[in-house]
Amino acid sequence: MCQHCPIKTIHGLQHHYGWDNSFAPVLHAAPGERLEFDCRDSSNGHFTRDSVVGDVVSMPFDRINPVSGPVYVDGAQPGDALQVTIERFEPGGFGWTANIPGFGLLADQFTEPALALWNYDSASLAPAAFGQFAKVPLKPFAGTIGVAPAEPGLHSVVPPRRVGGNLDIRDLAAGTTLWLPVEVDGALFSIGDTHAAQGDGEVCGTAIESAMKVVVKLDLVKGAALAAPRFSTPGPVTRHLDGAGYEVATGIGPDLMQAARDAVSRTVDWLCATHHMPAEQAYMLCSVCGDLRISEIVDQPNWVVSFYFPKIVFA
Amino acid sequence: MCQHCPIKTIHGLQHHYGWDNSFAPVLHAAPGERLEFDCRDSSNGHFTRDSVVGDVVSMPFDRINPVSGPVYVDGAQPGDALQVTIERFEPGGFGWTANIPGFGLLADQFTEPALALWNYDSASLAPAAFGQFAKVPLKPFAGTIGVAPAEPGLHSVVPPRRVGGNLDIRDLAAGTTLWLPVEVDGALFSIGDTHAAQGDGEVCGTAIESAMKVVVKLDLVKGAALAAPRFSTPGPVTRHLDGAGYEVATGIGPDLMQAARDAVSRTVDWLCATHHMPAEQAYMLCSVCGDLRISEIVDQPNWVVSFYFPKIVFA
Repeated sequence: MCQHCPIKTIHGLQHHYGWDNSFAPVLHAAPGERLEFDCRDSSNGHFTRDSVVGDVVSMPFDRINPVSGPVYVDGAQPGDALQVTIERFEPGGFGWTANIPGFGLLADQFTEPALALWNYDSASLAPAAFGQFAKVPLKPFAGTIGVAPAEPGLHSVVPPRRVGGNLDIRDLAAGTTLWLPVEVDGALFSIGDTHAAQGDGEVCGTAIESAMKVVVKLDLVKGAALAAPRFSTPGPVTRHLDGAGYEVATGIGPDLMQAARDAVSRTVDWLCATHHMPAEQAYMLCSVCGDLRISEIVDQPNWVVSFYFPKIVFA
Repeated sequence: MCQHCPIKTIHGLQHHYGWDNSFAPVLHAAPGERLEFDCRDSSNGHFTRDSVVGDVVSMPFDRINPVSGPVYVDGAQPGDALQVTIERFEPGGFGWTANIPGFGLLADQFTEPALALWNYDSASLAPAAFGQFAKVPLKPFAGTIGVAPAEPGLHSVVPPRRVGGNLDIRDLAAGTTLWLPVEVDGALFSIGDTHAAQGDGEVCGTAIESAMKVVVKLDLVKGAALAAPRFSTPGPVTRHLDGAGYEVATGIGPDLMQAARDAVSRTVDWLCATHHMPAEQAYMLCSVCGDLRISEIVDQPNWVVSFYFPKIVFA
């Protein structure tokens, strides 16, 4: 199938909440077909350019993170892998980032709601202003991308699982190929939760949440017997962020989660002290551009988790 | 102090095992002085170009990971930060990587010793051949770099701690500035465990272990009250590896350690299946070039840890 062939479209209203293999497909597609999905943002349109911080707590949590689909892929059977070639994003130009009380890596430290709104140039995708504090390079991707689980019933959209879902892997960007384990006939593929930018970890719990169109090509690898999602990137993954180097804080100890929390918390402290921003702004900025990396995981009993904050946002 | 000033040298025999603030300094240095350390490899010279796999189990474990020093920095007091400008490495050209039974992220799966020997061009630092399987880009750094802890007595060199030590952070390379919390008068700085290359995680437990000379400049930041080590890189940190993109396996679940283990184990499986290398070779190759990253840590109850394997090693 060539790039000039007509593309089937899945409209924004053709979405669902959570994963359930009894959901009726909105479309059937043959292997090799390209599809365009109109993805709503994870607040389902709750936030607009006029939103204020009070709108965070009034977000309808039973209607968050709609995913567009599901698409029935002809011939897909349990044990196959669905090969998703992620071709293109057309972001909408508006985005939001929030601290939602009870959610996020430092939920115990950040108990009050916070909200940042983003307006970016969807054509140039030039770095987007984060208030007067920073400019964040953009790299659109789909936070939630997956197929239906074999286990019957409705499953929350929040946790990622073997069949994918809310993976929030920021390198599932244009050009990447993703393989997902198929667990039900037809695979039942859905996608949504599009982000204009995010760092590894998505530490405050949200990215630059932004509605956008996504074009993917779906193929099958019969009998792949994949254990979990895997993907292949066509080239470098951090060059939009790495040009000016990084300021890095470490967390050291026997628990990876606590080490990650320490590394992020220390970066927030550093941002407050050196760049004079309020702590909740620093926390949200970390979420959209900073990377959590495991520096060492073998020197018993202490591991090192490092949070890499890209200096380019202050350039 | 200028680059033409004489450099004080700490010879390879001026080393110690473990950390103990009662160790006598081998040298006193003023803030601003540049020092050259002759660093032994972490096997303390046990492995040579003639070594065989049987030599892994005969390594004298009470004499591993010697660090050169300690250096007493004039004026350093508890509460200060020692600023270490990492200027230059002169690697020796020989290196080794081993799977040491009982040590490493997948110690339960890799119970037999394994050994790889490396010969690389220490002038060009061109990618080094890993047998017939791959060529690994080099980026020398010091795996162990730290100051003496306040707590009296002898402390194992293996775990990193608040004062640094066996951090195994592969971006502590030439050009990076590191800040360490000072806990005792004079700081008592030591360095060693030099590596010619390593991925984030050091998953098999060893890197390309290699003796080398290191030049650093030591300064003081009085009263910095640093919580843990932090560092600043002068530019990008992965461009030696990222040119051809990455093959990435995920681990998904409620425990970061298990997710990391799954991601690495799946990469080993993929290397065995697609590049036809023995599993223990794949495991060691992962350790010297692949990166463990935390993709998301907020979508309760499941986190995503991804292992990024750089395709450039097969280019």
